[in-house]
Amino acid sequence: MTVAASSAMTAPAGSPAFADHTLAGRLAAKIAQQIDAQVLRAGSRLASIRDFALAEQVSRFTVVQAYDRLVAAGLVESRRGSGFFVQHRPAAPLVPVSTPVVPSRVDVGWLLRTMFSETAVGSSAGGGLLPAEWLDPSMVAAAVRAVGRSARGGLVSYGHPGGFVPLRQQIAARLQADGIPAHPNHHLVTTAGVTQALDLIVRHFVQPGDTVLVEDPGWFLIFGRLAAFGARVIGVPRGPAGPDLEALDRLARQHRPKLFIINAAVHNPTGFSLSAAGAYGVLRAAEAHNFHIVEDDTYGDLHPGSAIRLAALDGLRRVIYVNGFSKTLAASLRVGFIAAPPELVGPLADLKMLTGLTSPELGERVVHRVLADGQYRRHVERVRQRVDDARERCLKLLARLGIRVQEPPQAGMFVWADCGSDTQALALAAAGQGIVLAPGSLFSPEQVDSTYMRFSVVMADDADAWKTLKSLMPAVRAPHAG
Amino acid sequence: MTVAASSAMTAPAGSPAFADHTLAGRLAAKIAQQIDAQVLRAGSRLASIRDFALAEQVSRFTVVQAYDRLVAAGLVESRRGSGFFVQHRPAAPLVPVSTPVVPSRVDVGWLLRTMFSETAVGSSAGGGLLPAEWLDPSMVAAAVRAVGRSARGGLVSYGHPGGFVPLRQQIAARLQADGIPAHPNHHLVTTAGVTQALDLIVRHFVQPGDTVLVEDPGWFLIFGRLAAFGARVIGVPRGPAGPDLEALDRLARQHRPKLFIINAAVHNPTGFSLSAAGAYGVLRAAEAHNFHIVEDDTYGDLHPGSAIRLAALDGLRRVIYVNGFSKTLAASLRVGFIAAPPELVGPLADLKMLTGLTSPELGERVVHRVLADGQYRRHVERVRQRVDDARERCLKLLARLGIRVQEPPQAGMFVWADCGSDTQALALAAAGQGIVLAPGSLFSPEQVDSTYMRFSVVMADDADAWKTLKSLMPAVRAPHAG
Repeated sequence: MTVAASSAMTAPAGSPAFADHTLAGRLAAKIAQQIDAQVLRAGSRLASIRDFALAEQVSRFTVVQAYDRLVAAGLVESRRGSGFFVQHRPAAPLVPVSTPVVPSRVDVGWLLRTMFSETAVGSSAGGGLLPAEWLDPSMVAAAVRAVGRSARGGLVSYGHPGGFVPLRQQIAARLQADGIPAHPNHHLVTTAGVTQALDLIVRHFVQPGDTVLVEDPGWFLIFGRLAAFGARVIGVPRGPAGPDLEALDRLARQHRPKLFIINAAVHNPTGFSLSAAGAYGVLRAAEAHNFHIVEDDTYGDLHPGSAIRLAALDGLRRVIYVNGFSKTLAASLRVGFIAAPPELVGPLADLKMLTGLTSPELGERVVHRVLADGQYRRHVERVRQRVDDARERCLKLLARLGIRVQEPPQAGMFVWADCGSDTQALALAAAGQGIVLAPGSLFSPEQVDSTYMRFSVVMADDADAWKTLKSLMPAVRAPHAG
Repeated sequence: MTVAASSAMTAPAGSPAFADHTLAGRLAAKIAQQIDAQVLRAGSRLASIRDFALAEQVSRFTVVQAYDRLVAAGLVESRRGSGFFVQHRPAAPLVPVSTPVVPSRVDVGWLLRTMFSETAVGSSAGGGLLPAEWLDPSMVAAAVRAVGRSARGGLVSYGHPGGFVPLRQQIAARLQADGIPAHPNHHLVTTAGVTQALDLIVRHFVQPGDTVLVEDPGWFLIFGRLAAFGARVIGVPRGPAGPDLEALDRLARQHRPKLFIINAAVHNPTGFSLSAAGAYGVLRAAEAHNFHIVEDDTYGDLHPGSAIRLAALDGLRRVIYVNGFSKTLAASLRVGFIAAPPELVGPLADLKMLTGLTSPELGERVVHRVLADGQYRRHVERVRQRVDDARERCLKLLARLGIRVQEPPQAGMFVWADCGSDTQALALAAAGQGIVLAPGSLFSPEQVDSTYMRFSVVMADDADAWKTLKSLMPAVRAPHAG
């Protein structure tokens, strides 16, 4: 664990940059260089503010600013009444540590660490996020500046336990437009993204020994968390129209689950969306066997037109709906939410407070600003169009490699494709060449090997990734052929 | 639970405000009014963009903007190819629900809900946060704008699993200046505030049946969380010089704890800081009985000069240090961190990712910006001065009410005072008058009644709170006197 884990933390470290072109910044950079070169040695006293200002022909205020920056950077220490002194450098070496690129197995931990590592190259194919340039960073940056101009006092206090009230009003309006009868106060609590939303729900519902149904294949992050809570995790096979209803009924009767966690629309990894009959069947099973449904709608915005949502059919009675703005707006804001029956919203908000206090209101204000400006709807349409185009290209490129997709998805950023042989081997070989892929075993609740691979449509424009994949396909198939 | 819990979510709801003085905003507001007054009825079609532009003598672009805002607010629906239609209004009534002000008992849940509620009045006396005007909202707002100008692509991608690298470098430099040998990559992981930091640590270490030592009195939020994990929570008496070392040794021998959670400097609620001998004794006990220490330094920045930190003595071997920027900079950013032995940082970062992915990098960039500007040190000094002044005044005002403080604290925003009779009754009576106080029972691991009360020095300037408190003191004391 130690080696792999420490790699998660690895990133280039270096001297803080002062070169921001202000006079104070340039002065600070100059002194930092002298400290670096040991012209100024540890423990030595810097010139007094007055002397230095005279020597450099700048104002004392500028020198104070420069010294403050050096203090903030840990290079210089201020001793009250006696001046500024060069710090003794830390014992720990401030050098980057190299990342081990090739794992022994492509598992959830390695994939997470690699996808989120700054040093990773070619990680597009395995990830679940669209590249920054497909989104609209300037729209988000403009909203950040607008919040910085208007928020003031609101920025330093805690936010509201349920989340920024105007944002909840907007979310409620959007949900209502989709037929989900969410009231901003009675049904909604914001979270730090969908992942925290699911974590809170699981913490609220699941005791050791409880059964939770998930989809097979399904989104992998939740499997390990459920296991950590001592839950029995049972997979329900997912097809193009929805979960296998016969299996759902049988497993629910047998295991009496507390929850069934499902992507109704634009399922991860297959891209499938529930049919009307599929949705009805799931709700009937929930009623017959008395479990709650957690509808994770993370990729639902990528569905063209209106998708069928379980929360809309059910009216937020048995269905707890979770969604966020990470995929279509900005992941780093970490803004998500839970829409739940009123009797669950209070306990979930309490749990959120007890485990992390309020969610970061700055991000919530930024999302609110984007929604209020009214450009979000068209932005999402543009993103969806780009994803749809890339998916079509991706399907064609896969076909050229002989990778068939039995049921091409109608929406979303993933293609779930049968590669004809164990995809762990293929993913490992690709990792050796710096290409991160997500093998089917990740999406299996029992992590069983699979011939399926989840490709991200972001790969469509990545010629290197295709070249690598092409070079690996025969190699992987060879053992079977020979 | 339901009633109290739903009150947590209560906040004024109303129509979205469009009146931002742009032309589009004014047009949108006008149409919204017509929808409100049912001049425009549900289902009816708005004028075409072209017609409306002609009628109002504005550009088509302005009309598009106005319609987009109405769509974003959920008042109007866009149907592709056929125009814009007034939405059917939601079934749920968009009206505020009144907050029940007087609880049956002042417990952790009620205090949290009330302190964080926007509608609460006079909540200063019980809370743990300084008011916005004591901090520097314009410094934070300027940093937000600067991040909005410079960050761009970084705003829409996920952050680094360990936290924004330049911020970790700054935190490491600050810790190193305090003698804590933290390396930005090997010892540090950022969190959404200290509360998430503690939650991650507890989740990593504590299995059902494990014992965790806490301080008595101590910070209350953690008690319930530990109990929820099935931990046995044992209080170690805390005095002015530190924990009762004899009791610590005895309890550790008897219960074999996994962790001891402690505020070494500026203890909540007493304001006490560890003596050198106290710190040494705690570290010796940890070694003798093989437990980890969690040093929660939330209020440590309010200590004048250098406080004794366990993490500095121990060199981050047995001590896991947690801190954040909520108290002295901005709570709504939710930026905190864990400094831990390298072998723990990987698993803690993995757990953070699995339960909520990366922390919100926007807030981390804002904190980084503030620290880089070099004004933070003096800002903290100003805040500390103000807190110290208010504490002196608070002690005088308490003395006038006959409330003695045996050991006046030398630092921090709390005064832990013996009120001479059960403070639950006093806090309940105060709650009836809109004043939120934090009775001693909250800070007891077993929630036992207490004659102590934690006052916040923020109360110093709150004449109404003092008046209420004065009026209540005899009433509370009467039953004992009579």
